[in-house]
Amino acid sequence: MSLLVVGSVALDSVETPFDKIDDALGGSATYISLAASYFSSPVVLIGVVGSDFPKPYIEILEEHNIDLDGLQVKENEKTFRWGGKYHYDLNVRDTLFTELNAFEKFDPVIPENFRKSKFICLGNIDPKLQLKVLEQISEPQFVVCDTMNLWINIMKEDLLKLIKKVHVFILNDSEARLLTEEPNLIKAAKMIREMGPEILIIKKGEHGALLFTDDTIFSAPAYPMEIIFDPTGAGDSFAGGFIGYLHRSRDLSAENIKRAVIYGSTMASFCVEKFSTKGLEDLSYLQIQDRFREFKKLSNFDESD
Amino acid sequence: MSLLVVGSVALDSVETPFDKIDDALGGSATYISLAASYFSSPVVLIGVVGSDFPKPYIEILEEHNIDLDGLQVKENEKTFRWGGKYHYDLNVRDTLFTELNAFEKFDPVIPENFRKSKFICLGNIDPKLQLKVLEQISEPQFVVCDTMNLWINIMKEDLLKLIKKVHVFILNDSEARLLTEEPNLIKAAKMIREMGPEILIIKKGEHGALLFTDDTIFSAPAYPMEIIFDPTGAGDSFAGGFIGYLHRSRDLSAENIKRAVIYGSTMASFCVEKFSTKGLEDLSYLQIQDRFREFKKLSNFDESD
Repeated sequence: MSLLVVGSVALDSVETPFDKIDDALGGSATYISLAASYFSSPVVLIGVVGSDFPKPYIEILEEHNIDLDGLQVKENEKTFRWGGKYHYDLNVRDTLFTELNAFEKFDPVIPENFRKSKFICLGNIDPKLQLKVLEQISEPQFVVCDTMNLWINIMKEDLLKLIKKVHVFILNDSEARLLTEEPNLIKAAKMIREMGPEILIIKKGEHGALLFTDDTIFSAPAYPMEIIFDPTGAGDSFAGGFIGYLHRSRDLSAENIKRAVIYGSTMASFCVEKFSTKGLEDLSYLQIQDRFREFKKLSNFDESD
Repeated sequence: MSLLVVGSVALDSVETPFDKIDDALGGSATYISLAASYFSSPVVLIGVVGSDFPKPYIEILEEHNIDLDGLQVKENEKTFRWGGKYHYDLNVRDTLFTELNAFEKFDPVIPENFRKSKFICLGNIDPKLQLKVLEQISEPQFVVCDTMNLWINIMKEDLLKLIKKVHVFILNDSEARLLTEEPNLIKAAKMIREMGPEILIIKKGEHGALLFTDDTIFSAPAYPMEIIFDPTGAGDSFAGGFIGYLHRSRDLSAENIKRAVIYGSTMASFCVEKFSTKGLEDLSYLQIQDRFREFKKLSNFDESD
């Protein structure tokens, strides 16, 4: 049974203190699919690009065994473009431009043969589109949903409707505070879980991530990095590693969901080590396992005295 | 062999969104000593108060078996007073007033019988005074030193001289960035360890703490709390739990230092549950052990798949 991913496929222009790149492969669905592809196969990507979308980027996705039957290519339109600049303190980012292009009228259609998918990852796009995808799935079993501050600000109603229907909601700490107007993250988490999602993950960038389930709070560390080349896509890679691992293992126990959070963090750490999707393009199973174990060393301690 | 603690003993006036209190027991040496007293005995407190210092506060310290031979009481002087106000977002605090009083001419004198102490905790005070204490100790074996942004701003030279001589340096994330002018905490940590201290702990408030040693980075979570009544003294309680546990166990291995970080976090979590020192006044060994285990559940995960 395939893993369905919906989100944006984009051409990103990114500037960091270390480098600058134009029209690089980007978009939430791209990062999610690439990260998930190391665990699951096939990953089915639902999205839209224009006829200017470079062939080599298609090839990168295909090399990772990502099914592109649901990737619409709009003739005579341009691909969604995003431009951003990161400051010396990489926690601060300016969006320089957003050109929706082919994305403006995106109407996601799930190919018939994938409508029985059980594992769905709704990458960060307009919550109306995320809902539209979900409505085409006959019996979703495990739906992971990401979002961003923009949708909380301008489409809160739709977002609230959506998260009632998802199993896992992922957002970052400032978005959790924005959504609940509550500065205490633990209280905010409780409030958000009451809005619907059984499982909540709050990403905290350099401070790791918090997982909230019915009877568990789990605190995952961030991988300690002296240099972060390009933070773009870290959150999407997290979501991809998280759902990819769970899709492969088919074990939705609390203990395994903790492991999935660490696999998510692992993929996010690889993502930011290089520009654009480069950090996710050529990994081995061994590298991923080694980093998972480094996370274990980073956060585990013994009780014995 | 006793554990020596130097720092401020103060009367704090604190306002939070939950309550307001005047002239409560406070000061870095007070919090450190109380937190350490659950592990070590005797804890020797070096400090100064005025003749207005309330007898009941002396009794609280004595009940915790804290040796007060090194606590100077200045006749006709007033005790150091600090007033602060926390906002709805408890990460933001305004200092309303600081009256140095008896503290202004504090000349720390270590009683003769404690000059051979091996474990020393230099609580947050003027680094010149911290140095003065250290110079009176014949063979310090394990010196823990805390500081604050004020000393980095106005006494950097003295602070740099001091931290060459300490084994463990504790500061918070914004102080680490201030000291090194480096936004990346992992890089900042490396730079600070090159300034002298073998072991570095960076406290991150609601995001936990990071421990850096020669070959270990350890990420300790923060205890998830829906309500923080009064953040005052959290960092000092951390230092007290940390050194108190190590003083008792006499095991300075990397694994045990990780445990000490968790005991420090444990004491900090008790501290902020109540106003002033109330959260540290009446704990049982069992309560401390239970919370230590909660930290384990919060951060440990298995590898098995």
